[in-house]
Amino acid sequence: MIVWVTGANGFIGRHLVHELAATGHEVHGVGHGALDAAEARRLGLQSWINGEIDAANLNTLAAAHGLPTQVFHLAGGSSVGVSIERPFEDFSRTVASTARLLEWLRGSAPDCAVIAASSAAVYGADHIGPIAESVVPAPMSPYGQHKLMMEQLCRSYARSFGLGCTVVRLFSVFGPNLRKQLLWDICSRLKAGEQVLTLGGTGNEIRDWTDVRDVVRLLAGLAEASPQQTFRIINGGSGQGTSVADIAAGLIGQWGSNTVVRHSGVSRPGDPVSLLADDAMLRQIGFDWRIPLAQGLADYVTWFKGQAS
Amino acid sequence: MIVWVTGANGFIGRHLVHELAATGHEVHGVGHGALDAAEARRLGLQSWINGEIDAANLNTLAAAHGLPTQVFHLAGGSSVGVSIERPFEDFSRTVASTARLLEWLRGSAPDCAVIAASSAAVYGADHIGPIAESVVPAPMSPYGQHKLMMEQLCRSYARSFGLGCTVVRLFSVFGPNLRKQLLWDICSRLKAGEQVLTLGGTGNEIRDWTDVRDVVRLLAGLAEASPQQTFRIINGGSGQGTSVADIAAGLIGQWGSNTVVRHSGVSRPGDPVSLLADDAMLRQIGFDWRIPLAQGLADYVTWFKGQAS
Repeated sequence: MIVWVTGANGFIGRHLVHELAATGHEVHGVGHGALDAAEARRLGLQSWINGEIDAANLNTLAAAHGLPTQVFHLAGGSSVGVSIERPFEDFSRTVASTARLLEWLRGSAPDCAVIAASSAAVYGADHIGPIAESVVPAPMSPYGQHKLMMEQLCRSYARSFGLGCTVVRLFSVFGPNLRKQLLWDICSRLKAGEQVLTLGGTGNEIRDWTDVRDVVRLLAGLAEASPQQTFRIINGGSGQGTSVADIAAGLIGQWGSNTVVRHSGVSRPGDPVSLLADDAMLRQIGFDWRIPLAQGLADYVTWFKGQAS
Repeated sequence: MIVWVTGANGFIGRHLVHELAATGHEVHGVGHGALDAAEARRLGLQSWINGEIDAANLNTLAAAHGLPTQVFHLAGGSSVGVSIERPFEDFSRTVASTARLLEWLRGSAPDCAVIAASSAAVYGADHIGPIAESVVPAPMSPYGQHKLMMEQLCRSYARSFGLGCTVVRLFSVFGPNLRKQLLWDICSRLKAGEQVLTLGGTGNEIRDWTDVRDVVRLLAGLAEASPQQTFRIINGGSGQGTSVADIAAGLIGQWGSNTVVRHSGVSRPGDPVSLLADDAMLRQIGFDWRIPLAQGLADYVTWFKGQAS
């Protein structure tokens, strides 16, 4: 099957391409990043266009390799912080790119299924306990707002033009090759030999941690399971909440360090106390999360020590 | 006061420029439409740029005439039908233009107040009775969806960057110079001498009709009344519902015709049965609608007969 991945050079994108290629798909990618042909092939990409998600590049892909059956749309802004520093860049990467992609599909590949990666950031900060897909979104940052707008474009093209779209709201995805965020930060400081590791916040912030290798299996599986409805939104979370303090303790244990963790008690404005998926829809689909958190943390530490040596 | 109007060459834009100029403001405009200097001046515009709402054009305006105190953002898609035929054009006109405007204001004129024209189309089709601003929007068309996304960009820039934004959801605005939609259609057919006038739908569809001269006075007034909150959404409707059948009868009466109206009974898919504003917020502000519907219809007929002769 011919499948395309936008943002294929990103953290989740690279894992997804690997998964899709390993299961026999012909994978082409478009997005930002200089990959030579050998590197692209090594990742599992038959071809790669380093550029915008726009009609010219999509036409080029289609002319050279045929129309896709599925498009995994992972391109977009990748950080709340950057979205606050440069909101228009985040808008362009997340919203405008989606508008161009959907419009191209409407005209050129209306039967192609879209699987779009959204984020739990659409939910905002005021939740306690599992969050169902049906709650009214209330994003706090441009990043979350733009992800919500991306979802709405998908909904609009599904409703008005029959395009089949599945939106997956991803939670706290981690795993090998993630070079930012909490786990990267903690491992970097452990490697530097910090004896007292002070983290922001209270340590009680709850997140729904998911291993990227499970996440890409979920994304690929959602594309296979052709839905009855043309549009659906699904939480891509495990339903298991773990505090930042417990993540830090787990990582330090895997590292084999006796570093002490302290929490500043100062939360970033808008940083949610809890982002935990209601996983009822995923359970209904029958998806099984296979990598326990402890295993994921162990693998992350192993990868970190390996890549850094 | 220096004020800018985007989309100043549109139906509401032209009336708004007239209102603002008449009340002593220095008005500059940007948007689409070829206006020579004399025509622009006649409309009340000190200057006019025929082009995109983008940083280059906004910088040009600012360099030549100084920074604005208020921007009235009226540029955008103008029809549900066009948004279904060419959704990306509607996205570009409504959403992308707003993103560029807000980003420019964030960097260059962060104290400028924004008054953005949205639409009751954000509410969708499933309402009976007055609709409050607080209901969850459920747009049915790309037009309504993109207007909602425009609102969300305003909300995001207000929340994250303190930009002061007032969103006004306009309902069924009509008045002199409106050359499309129901009133234009009926008058055109009366002029052609149709003896039996068949309209789509049931005739019982309820709309909240507002005269454009009242609407622009509302917009101008909202800009003057500097709000406590950085972001607000206000229904720009009268709270008075009138059926399509009654509008048709009123127009025919003003025309002095004995044309008979029939309704096909066939509704356009997604055409709301009722779009009526809950006007509690406007009443709280103390806004008074001055032009009764019968007067508005009479003036429309007078204008129509005059422009057509």
